Amino acid sequence: MTLPSSVVISEEGPREGFQIEPGPIAAADKIALIDALGRTGLKYIQAVSFVNPKRVPGMADAEEVVGGMTLTPGVEYSSIWFNEIGLLRAWALRDRLTIAGKIRAYPSDAFLKKNLNRSHEEHLEYTRYEIGRYKNMGIPVSEASVTAAFGCNFAGEIPVERVLSEIGALKALIVEHDLPINVVSLADTMAWATPNTIKRVVGAVQDRFPEFDVSLHLHDTRGMAIANAFAGLQMGVVYFDAAVGGLGGCPFAAHRGAAGNISTEDLVFMCHEMGIETGIDLDALIECALLAERIVGHPLPGQVMRGGTLAKFREGARSR
Amino acid sequence: MTLPSSVVISEEGPREGFQIEPGPIAAADKIALIDALGRTGLKYIQAVSFVNPKRVPGMADAEEVVGGMTLTPGVEYSSIWFNEIGLLRAWALRDRLTIAGKIRAYPSDAFLKKNLNRSHEEHLEYTRYEIGRYKNMGIPVSEASVTAAFGCNFAGEIPVERVLSEIGALKALIVEHDLPINVVSLADTMAWATPNTIKRVVGAVQDRFPEFDVSLHLHDTRGMAIANAFAGLQMGVVYFDAAVGGLGGCPFAAHRGAAGNISTEDLVFMCHEMGIETGIDLDALIECALLAERIVGHPLPGQVMRGGTLAKFREGARSR
Repeated sequence: MTLPSSVVISEEGPREGFQIEPGPIAAADKIALIDALGRTGLKYIQAVSFVNPKRVPGMADAEEVVGGMTLTPGVEYSSIWFNEIGLLRAWALRDRLTIAGKIRAYPSDAFLKKNLNRSHEEHLEYTRYEIGRYKNMGIPVSEASVTAAFGCNFAGEIPVERVLSEIGALKALIVEHDLPINVVSLADTMAWATPNTIKRVVGAVQDRFPEFDVSLHLHDTRGMAIANAFAGLQMGVVYFDAAVGGLGGCPFAAHRGAAGNISTEDLVFMCHEMGIETGIDLDALIECALLAERIVGHPLPGQVMRGGTLAKFREGARSR
Repeated sequence: MTLPSSVVISEEGPREGFQIEPGPIAAADKIALIDALGRTGLKYIQAVSFVNPKRVPGMADAEEVVGGMTLTPGVEYSSIWFNEIGLLRAWALRDRLTIAGKIRAYPSDAFLKKNLNRSHEEHLEYTRYEIGRYKNMGIPVSEASVTAAFGCNFAGEIPVERVLSEIGALKALIVEHDLPINVVSLADTMAWATPNTIKRVVGAVQDRFPEFDVSLHLHDTRGMAIANAFAGLQMGVVYFDAAVGGLGGCPFAAHRGAAGNISTEDLVFMCHEMGIETGIDLDALIECALLAERIVGHPLPGQVMRGGTLAKFREGARSR
């Protein structure tokens, strides 16, 4: 089993993290973190979400954050939205943000109903509508994801066949509309995955859809994220989402069960130690994690930010 | 790659955890945790260490703890010591503790010097002396371990050949003294391992010494423990040490870099989800982790104790 020689990590910490924090967190602090992340070698940074400020007050300052951040050349800054208002807010900042349309599949009918109050058919219809809208606006639809691909709090286990049929439906849309999509993200939205399910589902997707690369979006709610990432690497996965410091999760009771993403620096540490290139400066990334911790004002779940890298020990051993 | 059908987990939380806590922690609380752990299905519980109370005040009450705990039939309660005084303290409690001699190899000369102020030859000589002493006392020498088998803060990388030669030296002692040892523990004492090094070192040991089973003692200082455990399972390892709640590590700055063991309940969760039996009641174990957290008075690094198991979601999905 050969591991990939390099991986591409998309940083979602600013969006995942600042969205969930009880706050308030100053826009200047958010900007400071995004700017620091932009200097680590990360090529993809999800900066903000454009969501209802009444429901997610922590993201009400999205425009201020995007307006204030310093764009590092070669870095793509992105955002997410879930409705037309959000899209239009993002679109207004298209000189500073990469605006890409994303189509989403829901192999859990129960979650789709709960989350978006749509049936499977209604969601497919909505997705067609979305694609048309993006086309009209000249926005490339370049991302595809499968939500809760490894299990769902409402539907329980997700049969692999259902994941495959959902990707088949996405593929039909991609072909029909000639969408520039060659990566499908499998999201462990509710942290059901273990290394075994990662291997089973990723393997099945690779077998059925060799034309797509797989991306993994892993949550660490049950402590499995790094093992799941390793299982993904064993399957040849090279695209991962992550959040610096493990932002978005929190070891505190107030955030009990909060589903933080895999910690970026822990993932980068594992990759580098195994000879897998990330293009990221791990020391600079750890500084970002410590900055994030100071900003949110409580310990973050990342481990390497506390345990440190092995560089100084290697250096010391060499100079003995 | 087939995973084992069952594993044996040795619980080290009470010893690892209460030793490192600034305390003071009441003996009654320690006893409560040990007793609760004894009811989870765990078969091996390391309860205390007999160490210098001036250096480790948190373990000064070891006799009181051992005297007060309720012994569950079928559970082995053990302890550790590092010198003759400690051994004699443990020996005095042999009606309540399983007393087993352990021989230790140090593939890092630098760490051996730093930790025990011995050269390689001096340690070998001391080990022979220890074996003789155990024999005289009628104590079986039934455990063997390799310290810092995956890397060392003082020596840096540890060549696999050196690990093998150390196990070879242990084997010579085992043969010479006819010791009842068939498991060799590889300890990632300073948290250098990644899944790759686990596979490389464990594989080399299995190839060279098929007569020994491998046990893994994993620390989570850099967030790799659960991925390393998965790599171990992939190599067929069935013996693991773990600490409930991840006791021994701590997300707080005061414990910066503290090297906690892999969290028992996270490991059990992963095993159960992958169809690997542990004989442990995960819900009862999570209650122990929450009890441990209340006792130490700060958040512990375990994740499943916060995220919960998937049982209630599966149940809910079934009854839909």
